[in-house]
Amino acid sequence: MKLYKKGDDSSYTLGVFPTIELLEHKPNIVKRVVVHSSIEENRGYPKIKELCALHHIPIDVHDATINKLSPKSNCYAIGVFKIFYEPLQKGNHIVLVNPMDMGNMGTIMRTMLGFGYQDLAIIRPAVDIFNPHVVRSSMGALFSLRIHYYESIDEYLKEFGDHQCYSFMLKGAKNIHQVKPVTPHSLIFGNESSGLDDIYMTYGQSVFIPHTNAIDSLNLAQSVGIGLFHFSQDAFNKQEVLR
Amino acid sequence: MKLYKKGDDSSYTLGVFPTIELLEHKPNIVKRVVVHSSIEENRGYPKIKELCALHHIPIDVHDATINKLSPKSNCYAIGVFKIFYEPLQKGNHIVLVNPMDMGNMGTIMRTMLGFGYQDLAIIRPAVDIFNPHVVRSSMGALFSLRIHYYESIDEYLKEFGDHQCYSFMLKGAKNIHQVKPVTPHSLIFGNESSGLDDIYMTYGQSVFIPHTNAIDSLNLAQSVGIGLFHFSQDAFNKQEVLR
Repeated sequence: MKLYKKGDDSSYTLGVFPTIELLEHKPNIVKRVVVHSSIEENRGYPKIKELCALHHIPIDVHDATINKLSPKSNCYAIGVFKIFYEPLQKGNHIVLVNPMDMGNMGTIMRTMLGFGYQDLAIIRPAVDIFNPHVVRSSMGALFSLRIHYYESIDEYLKEFGDHQCYSFMLKGAKNIHQVKPVTPHSLIFGNESSGLDDIYMTYGQSVFIPHTNAIDSLNLAQSVGIGLFHFSQDAFNKQEVLR
Repeated sequence: MKLYKKGDDSSYTLGVFPTIELLEHKPNIVKRVVVHSSIEENRGYPKIKELCALHHIPIDVHDATINKLSPKSNCYAIGVFKIFYEPLQKGNHIVLVNPMDMGNMGTIMRTMLGFGYQDLAIIRPAVDIFNPHVVRSSMGALFSLRIHYYESIDEYLKEFGDHQCYSFMLKGAKNIHQVKPVTPHSLIFGNESSGLDDIYMTYGQSVFIPHTNAIDSLNLAQSVGIGLFHFSQDAFNKQEVLR
């Protein structure tokens, strides 16, 4: 096995937890699981064995592979999977235009799942979501989402132009606190450094998250988290207990 | 100069932008600035020179120091500063109990500043906020905040027990959407993995951020960002433009 590089037709999870997420949510794309000989003591291993048996997925014990693919960290399991793309479904979407930061991307996926958003559109050029760092930072949330790359926002809008679009921009016309969410919607966010181009003022309703001028802008993952929280409130604001 | 380690009485910024933030907000703690010989072309350098002249801070051109302290990245300036602690002031606070992740910490500081929160209490054991990674991930927001470490939550409450406390917990009694913020308040968040102990149910109002059960919990920085957004809304919800 080789270290993942962009364009490969397979990638892999690093760690027991994301490997279980992979096996639970996308067993059909798993090629094999590689484990370290010291995994026996790990409390997640019985679950991995159970899921692999259920789906007839081979498990190899191979320390050298683990050490090669995850040289720096305590990693006991790797799940090798075929790269997948899935068409988005109608419903509330997150649209990321030219996102470049791997850590942000994983955090965003996980928060999407937390607020019930399952469809993620990514406008190229953009980070490769199958890079093992993204997979890891998503803690496996990647495998519960439908994710699709588009070459341009126009290509996306051709398919989902009937969604209510909300473009998040520093120059946005409306304070997010004043926006009553309409469904189905697409929350659109720009690149980490440059945000969205002015043209996005013309796509649906442009929105700003008010903040002090002590900072230039909020971190992308923070903006998306706040957007998700605000726009999903109708589904959650009456909930009486979480746990 | 040596690589920073916990317990040192000085630390340093890595990069032009955080060095400017340091010089602008805390010139009195700066010992000296070290720059790389290729900084001349950097558009932030005139600002650094101006601020150093104003505050009589020496600038050394010393590539070896830069390369040693920042081996991996393009870094053109380092600001060496004396570790500082500042008493908190009455007002809205963030309280982090046993935070351990450096990247989260920087993001949280920056978002606090964005929502007008200037006081951060940290309950030990906790990450060292003067580690250069935290300074960098805060993009210098660190220098605009008052930050104080406490040995226990009791020590904090002895000082600010008259604040309305909101403890963020999965078992929280009240849905955040139903909470009308009272001021001055302290928003209390637990460790990245373990959250807050049950005892925090008894400190003020416990709060949960509702989310699906597809995830165990939100990322700490995401929870704090959402808390800040919700609890600062009275200050921001009428704002008509950001920029």
